[in-house]
Amino acid sequence: MTVYTIALIGFGGVNRALTELIATKNQLWERDLGFRLNIVAVSDLFLGSVISPNGLDAKMLVETNFAKGGFGQLSGGSAEADNETIIKTAPADIVVEATFTNPIDGEAAVSHCRWALQTGKHVVTTNKGPVAIAARELKALAKANGVHFEYEGSVMSGTPVIRMAEKTLAGAELKGFEGILNGTSNFVLGRMEGGLDFAAAVKEAQQLGYAEADPTADVEGFDVRLKVVILANELLGADLKPGDVICKGISGLSAADIEKAAKANSRWKLIGSAVRGADGRVTGSVSPRQLPLDHPLAGVNGATNAVSLNTELLGSVTITGPGAGRIETAYALLSDIVAIHNTHVSVATREAA
Amino acid sequence: MTVYTIALIGFGGVNRALTELIATKNQLWERDLGFRLNIVAVSDLFLGSVISPNGLDAKMLVETNFAKGGFGQLSGGSAEADNETIIKTAPADIVVEATFTNPIDGEAAVSHCRWALQTGKHVVTTNKGPVAIAARELKALAKANGVHFEYEGSVMSGTPVIRMAEKTLAGAELKGFEGILNGTSNFVLGRMEGGLDFAAAVKEAQQLGYAEADPTADVEGFDVRLKVVILANELLGADLKPGDVICKGISGLSAADIEKAAKANSRWKLIGSAVRGADGRVTGSVSPRQLPLDHPLAGVNGATNAVSLNTELLGSVTITGPGAGRIETAYALLSDIVAIHNTHVSVATREAA
Repeated sequence: MTVYTIALIGFGGVNRALTELIATKNQLWERDLGFRLNIVAVSDLFLGSVISPNGLDAKMLVETNFAKGGFGQLSGGSAEADNETIIKTAPADIVVEATFTNPIDGEAAVSHCRWALQTGKHVVTTNKGPVAIAARELKALAKANGVHFEYEGSVMSGTPVIRMAEKTLAGAELKGFEGILNGTSNFVLGRMEGGLDFAAAVKEAQQLGYAEADPTADVEGFDVRLKVVILANELLGADLKPGDVICKGISGLSAADIEKAAKANSRWKLIGSAVRGADGRVTGSVSPRQLPLDHPLAGVNGATNAVSLNTELLGSVTITGPGAGRIETAYALLSDIVAIHNTHVSVATREAA
Repeated sequence: MTVYTIALIGFGGVNRALTELIATKNQLWERDLGFRLNIVAVSDLFLGSVISPNGLDAKMLVETNFAKGGFGQLSGGSAEADNETIIKTAPADIVVEATFTNPIDGEAAVSHCRWALQTGKHVVTTNKGPVAIAARELKALAKANGVHFEYEGSVMSGTPVIRMAEKTLAGAELKGFEGILNGTSNFVLGRMEGGLDFAAAVKEAQQLGYAEADPTADVEGFDVRLKVVILANELLGADLKPGDVICKGISGLSAADIEKAAKANSRWKLIGSAVRGADGRVTGSVSPRQLPLDHPLAGVNGATNAVSLNTELLGSVTITGPGAGRIETAYALLSDIVAIHNTHVSVATREAA
């Protein structure tokens, strides 16, 4: 039986949800997936850090109501979070990066990933920042160190758009994609169709916890832009930076625009897309688009996300699923670990055969 | 560079489309996928058979207008199709089975697969018959002989529903699925929504080439039933036979039923589904269902297919894409060969490292 030791960097919603899963699912995973996870380190700016080579009790971690610096009370703990030392010295096979997204330079997460890969640890992350800004460097670093850099959850939480395109559509000749990649703006558009104006719809999204106090990143398309960069670079072999992607959000849409679309049997959707042109160059964009009701993305409602992959041999293949959620995003981390595990197991099995 | 030698069993639309792809794409595949395909044998009940150890010219095969028994004119050819001898003796790494679907006992395709696997050849197929009727036996046989039995195209042509569930959703805890798995009946329902009665809609489908002269298998749900069996057995570990799945088609729906659904903001769809009950038992069914318009499958129109996979950790994830088409189905065969190739390459690469 395989046990992977893991270090959690950040202990917010996502890594806490992963810890909940570990507390309840390890036995099931051992049977169905062939491995268990053992948390040997946690570091969090607010709670402090802890290293425990024999493993921390996942149930204790999620059930204890830690105060600021509370990890200092644990054996091997400190009230301070020295991420660099934790990442470099924790006896972990895998570093799980789930700190906040910095859309400008990806820091501190880029450094977290770099430190982990440099010291021979796999990295799994749901953090858009380091993937959108530094995937090329980090993938090269992973390769040089014989480890994995996996980030399925950086685009659609647990909905496996990256892995579907890469593992199941090889040879279909991907030409581009278009997607609904932000649940908040999609919810706001739906409420505007229900009769609210933009400001009232945003307010309702905030009250329901779908939108943050500052909704700019969601409604102005900046969040989608990072996801377009990640998908274009990963699936179309582009080398885009966020600034290369034209970006227009939904704040300019009026109630009259919404009504006019409905009369034309169509709906406004915030679409992130990229396409490879005849010259081979990949261009990305984020923009509201009026889709006819029979368009594959027109029926995607609320917080659901979807991406249509446009291929030469198959035409359009669409994947639709959750784009957010604590457990859903934690599942993305698990799916990354499954991918790491399967690479190694398939080799071990065949070498033994 | 890797060359896979292949034997085509059946030279109808699908294997002919694969041959067209080979004629034009081998160079691209060599660069992007790491292999070329070389056709060393073809057998077809109408055209006869041919074995050519150095390989047949794919362009010649698709461009020649062969008459009945026409393969007899080729070097190494015969006007007769002795599938057993061809399958057992052709110097092929992979046998590509694309003969007709027999929904009762899966023959002759089951025997084709068996002969290939027994003689150490991989099998890729788009034929529902052998997969729905004999997958368990054939998978065991493949394993015992150290080869693959792959059949992505048996459910949704090239849309990778099997591989998505298995390669990208491991650990998400699949509880069941529901899908639109027959484009003909879905087209007929759409035309009935457009005002035609059942008989007129079927007639139009026949005129457009979507429905066969005898539309029974499509409109009575028998085609969907085979696909439900394949998915339930493959993804939910069931051991269903076609007769275990309750099956009701769309021929009983009247124009009044369609109208009533529209007034209730819903649509009739022919749904194939399976679910694992509390006792662990998997039950499958095929039946028309009235779906509310915001249901993920309600917007799937015409010949498009879709399957929603219901999971414990991710909720519902839906894949939508073509469910038929010559090139689309031929792509499924390519995707199976990519899967075979990647298993072997990842081992070879790591052994060399």
